[in-house]
Amino acid sequence: MNPMQVNPENPIGVFDSGIGGLTVAKALFEGLPFENIIYFGDTARVPYGVKSVKTISLYAQQITQFLLSQEVKLLIVACNTMSSVAYHVIADLSPVPVFGVVDAGASSAVAQTNNKRVGVIGTPATIGSKAYPRAINEYDPEIRVFSQPCPLFVPLVEEGWLDHQVTRLTAEEYLKPVVAFGIDTLVLGCTHYPLLKPMLREVLGDEIALIDSAQSITEQTAQLLKRDNLLREHHGLPEHRFFVTDFPIKFQEIGERFLGRALSNVELVNW
Amino acid sequence: MNPMQVNPENPIGVFDSGIGGLTVAKALFEGLPFENIIYFGDTARVPYGVKSVKTISLYAQQITQFLLSQEVKLLIVACNTMSSVAYHVIADLSPVPVFGVVDAGASSAVAQTNNKRVGVIGTPATIGSKAYPRAINEYDPEIRVFSQPCPLFVPLVEEGWLDHQVTRLTAEEYLKPVVAFGIDTLVLGCTHYPLLKPMLREVLGDEIALIDSAQSITEQTAQLLKRDNLLREHHGLPEHRFFVTDFPIKFQEIGERFLGRALSNVELVNW
Repeated sequence: MNPMQVNPENPIGVFDSGIGGLTVAKALFEGLPFENIIYFGDTARVPYGVKSVKTISLYAQQITQFLLSQEVKLLIVACNTMSSVAYHVIADLSPVPVFGVVDAGASSAVAQTNNKRVGVIGTPATIGSKAYPRAINEYDPEIRVFSQPCPLFVPLVEEGWLDHQVTRLTAEEYLKPVVAFGIDTLVLGCTHYPLLKPMLREVLGDEIALIDSAQSITEQTAQLLKRDNLLREHHGLPEHRFFVTDFPIKFQEIGERFLGRALSNVELVNW
Repeated sequence: MNPMQVNPENPIGVFDSGIGGLTVAKALFEGLPFENIIYFGDTARVPYGVKSVKTISLYAQQITQFLLSQEVKLLIVACNTMSSVAYHVIADLSPVPVFGVVDAGASSAVAQTNNKRVGVIGTPATIGSKAYPRAINEYDPEIRVFSQPCPLFVPLVEEGWLDHQVTRLTAEEYLKPVVAFGIDTLVLGCTHYPLLKPMLREVLGDEIALIDSAQSITEQTAQLLKRDNLLREHHGLPEHRFFVTDFPIKFQEIGERFLGRALSNVELVNW
């Protein structure tokens, strides 16, 4: 599809396996305050990390088709697992540009590092996929990447223990080998982790740069929309809509913590 | 089906949404060392706690049919979520007796408590279902139950931090209000929790009885098999088989931690 044919009023589509991608939605709301945005969270089938590539690809296709039917002008894959294993399936299906969090975080880390030693933290599924080191080394094969799975961070964030001694001790334990590797840049390779930024900053000190994919992807989106004259010109209040496949326990509470504001306009998709 | 028609050589079927039920399998291996046992873990579709009752019931039916096709002489529902919301669906389908962990834990707690104040800890889904207080109060309406969700215990067990300061601090925080309620008995309402018993004992002291559903269900199973002359008479080595729907990351490592021994004879069921 020629970008010239796309209506700048059309929304940006953001999708995730659950509610973690709301940190990406939040960054987009802040960085692109006039854009219409549709968020899709596959809350009935989360987590994707334990599923096969075939299944994840199928789910990614379904969500892509749903968002394309909403006439989105751009697609953002907020889910690290989907970005890692199904990016090409989505991009092949989509006539509009597709941005994934993995590539966004990787390119920011490459631009940031001086000593060419980068750390990546994420869920066991994301770390196991090796998607981040692969993407970083495609930009610069000389960069050495130290990857560390942090399986307790997601449940700690969902429990709301953002400033808790338990979380501090856990972070210290997970990050000790990463810091010992001599990194100057750390990629937060999970949409839940931006909520831990103050704590990670406390544990890591000020010398290590933290890469938040949500911010990277917002900057890249802004650049692309500007370049292709696709920024929404009508500066009235934008429309933000949320679609989910289930309302799990504590959905509202956790969602609002991620979003940093009230979560309204949530619609259930029955698949 | 008349119990007289059942062959005592037939296996006991144990099923769970994932690998947590291996603590139940372990108790059965120890308490009934001559029995043939088939374990089914729905590792591709775990966790069940976030799914709708309709979906959980459908999955429970599929697994029940699979185990019945293996000619089991008894079914044990090791999963707290399935026991809470789909027990009757399973029992209606099964010609052989069905034991669920919730009823086993509840009846043991009722037999144990002196002051009629019982605590129950479990996942948010299990606690939210109120299945334990309902089952306990069906035995004795006078017992007061204090329920506490402990969402971090499952990831802590899966991380292997069984004797870690982080787990100790977490347990202290979760258990403070439970202890303050004046309980003399605590039900471990999740198949992962028996691995935390030494830590919970440390935090709670010796005055509070810990109810492990895996042990309760093993005792009840032994009684029933004896009563109905269904104990396996042939005292040769029993057969233990494991069926799973997927091999997730760290499956072997976590499974062996739960089982307390090498995990072999694992077969993949492709659904």
